Amino acid sequence: MNMWSGVIGEYLDFMPVEDRTEIVTLQEGGTPLIPAPSLAQKLGIEAELYLKYEGANPTGSFKDRGMTLAVTKALGEGSEAIICASTGNTSAAAAAYGARAGLKTVVVVPEGNIALGKMAQALNHGAEVIPVQDNFDAALRIVRKICESYPVTLVNSLNPYRIEGQKSAALEVCDQLGEAPEILAIPVGNAGNITAYWQGFCEYRKARKINSCPEMWGFEASGAAAITRDKVIENPETVASAIRIGDPVSWDKAASAAEESGGIIEEVKDEELLFAYSSLADCAGVFAEPASAASLAGVKKMSDRKSLSADDLVVAVLTGHGLKDPDSALDVISEPEAVPARIEDVLDRAGLA
Amino acid sequence: MNMWSGVIGEYLDFMPVEDRTEIVTLQEGGTPLIPAPSLAQKLGIEAELYLKYEGANPTGSFKDRGMTLAVTKALGEGSEAIICASTGNTSAAAAAYGARAGLKTVVVVPEGNIALGKMAQALNHGAEVIPVQDNFDAALRIVRKICESYPVTLVNSLNPYRIEGQKSAALEVCDQLGEAPEILAIPVGNAGNITAYWQGFCEYRKARKINSCPEMWGFEASGAAAITRDKVIENPETVASAIRIGDPVSWDKAASAAEESGGIIEEVKDEELLFAYSSLADCAGVFAEPASAASLAGVKKMSDRKSLSADDLVVAVLTGHGLKDPDSALDVISEPEAVPARIEDVLDRAGLA
Repeated sequence: MNMWSGVIGEYLDFMPVEDRTEIVTLQEGGTPLIPAPSLAQKLGIEAELYLKYEGANPTGSFKDRGMTLAVTKALGEGSEAIICASTGNTSAAAAAYGARAGLKTVVVVPEGNIALGKMAQALNHGAEVIPVQDNFDAALRIVRKICESYPVTLVNSLNPYRIEGQKSAALEVCDQLGEAPEILAIPVGNAGNITAYWQGFCEYRKARKINSCPEMWGFEASGAAAITRDKVIENPETVASAIRIGDPVSWDKAASAAEESGGIIEEVKDEELLFAYSSLADCAGVFAEPASAASLAGVKKMSDRKSLSADDLVVAVLTGHGLKDPDSALDVISEPEAVPARIEDVLDRAGLA
Repeated sequence: MNMWSGVIGEYLDFMPVEDRTEIVTLQEGGTPLIPAPSLAQKLGIEAELYLKYEGANPTGSFKDRGMTLAVTKALGEGSEAIICASTGNTSAAAAAYGARAGLKTVVVVPEGNIALGKMAQALNHGAEVIPVQDNFDAALRIVRKICESYPVTLVNSLNPYRIEGQKSAALEVCDQLGEAPEILAIPVGNAGNITAYWQGFCEYRKARKINSCPEMWGFEASGAAAITRDKVIENPETVASAIRIGDPVSWDKAASAAEESGGIIEEVKDEELLFAYSSLADCAGVFAEPASAASLAGVKKMSDRKSLSADDLVVAVLTGHGLKDPDSALDVISEPEAVPARIEDVLDRAGLA
């Protein structure tokens, strides 16, 4: 029995850590790679479809993979605190790993722009959440300035160890399949994750663990499709809050990953994304946050355009758990009406009569 | 690289399935067993403390372990639908595995008693959620009656395969530690899970995989402490909704598990439970639902009474993810006030100045 020790321990040869480093881990990674033939059939995708379900990470998103390494490094370098500007999954992961390491965690957010529900994880993990009277850019500027002069480590996506940790997901996909897939489809927001996967595949090929790399298919939401449309989106709009980003940090690297791999960066409309979101839940049994569904919506869209063959392995990355975004979950359902407490009424409503 | 295939596949020798059974799985199980020395120190627990973090299961709770087997069996037996009466984690797991198997899932609940947030998973997974104009007992009576006359499988805790699947967690704990722990602490609601763990340990000892079984320490919430107080609680009250049960289904088996193992069934107050809940998040980096914290609160309480030694291995089971119960998460935090967007103000608030 080979129990999972977390992404640094499992992929030590590929991680920039010394032998004697104290590793800060919640045993993240080792997430399910779920075959989804019924879903592929429903969506008309003629290929062997798999879902990489990152919602099963400890804080409910792929961010844990990068945070284990970023916080391990911060601790090793003698930092007194970690800091980030984030209203979402990054703050949850930072706060959890910061708490685990015994480091103070500071999260700076724009005032008025925080849903308490979204920040519940960071606050419960004891992070100092500080709303500032300005916008997100100002929050990010402040945290960068602080890291220049104080023994505080920036754990926003500018931290290079985040990408190094996140690449572990690509290695896992190859180990789970026994080879690289033909296509890796992934949501694109800040574009760090597509960058990380591509780096992972390239390193695994160089190490002769796989013979070829997949095409990287990255999908932005139409209302935030900066890379696809080759322009900064001033006011990005999409239901997929986790990829609502108009000027991606890793823009160039994402574009390179798509180009070098023979892949694409494309956009999907909110309605395509929400249809994929519902289909994941009611057909494959997988509850993911709306942004996650961009990968699946994208595969459906592209499979009409690019020829796939039935034995192509296509992996769609689902970045976060559906429980991360209960508001979106409630938006797509309606409250069921009550029936009398009689067997025949229940059978009738259930369609079993 | 030994990737996880789900609890039936990993523990096939201990599962009541045939070789050629089609397994319905979301690759549940294989959840983190997280060492928690800082937390033990904070709570004054003098032992080697580990947390079995079941929130990392696909639907966010331990219920997935039993549901993979219950639904696999339902599918193999030719059922057309699965049904349960549940307002919580059971309905989420049933709906997810039902969707995965392509079986209709019916969830019967008492009218007026459903928080839409709690039912969001079941509804998103496409379950037919039917509120009836009566109480929970009536809902349960109806689903039992339906299963007597229709090709519909009951997946409430009365389904014996639920326990068989859930016992996998005990096997995992032993495999992760390389031996059985001295103490296994666990929340007790309907008492199915403590029953399942005890069965798992006993089977593993019989198979000579371990040399001894742990003491089983089960903890009820004080407002729902039927077994501890040896009486049915008519109106159970506790913040820990997942164990708010006044007449446990597996009462006798839980009592036997405690007795046979030399353990105990005890109760913990809501304030003890909430303190443990917060400590898990801000000290160990683990976000669990309030009911989960009953195990940890119990270990803290008992460690004052029963002598532990520093090298005793104590495993506290955390049954579900904190994201399952966002209301409780929000109850224990308050909205942070904004500061001017200046470095000195942020540093000052963060205590870094």
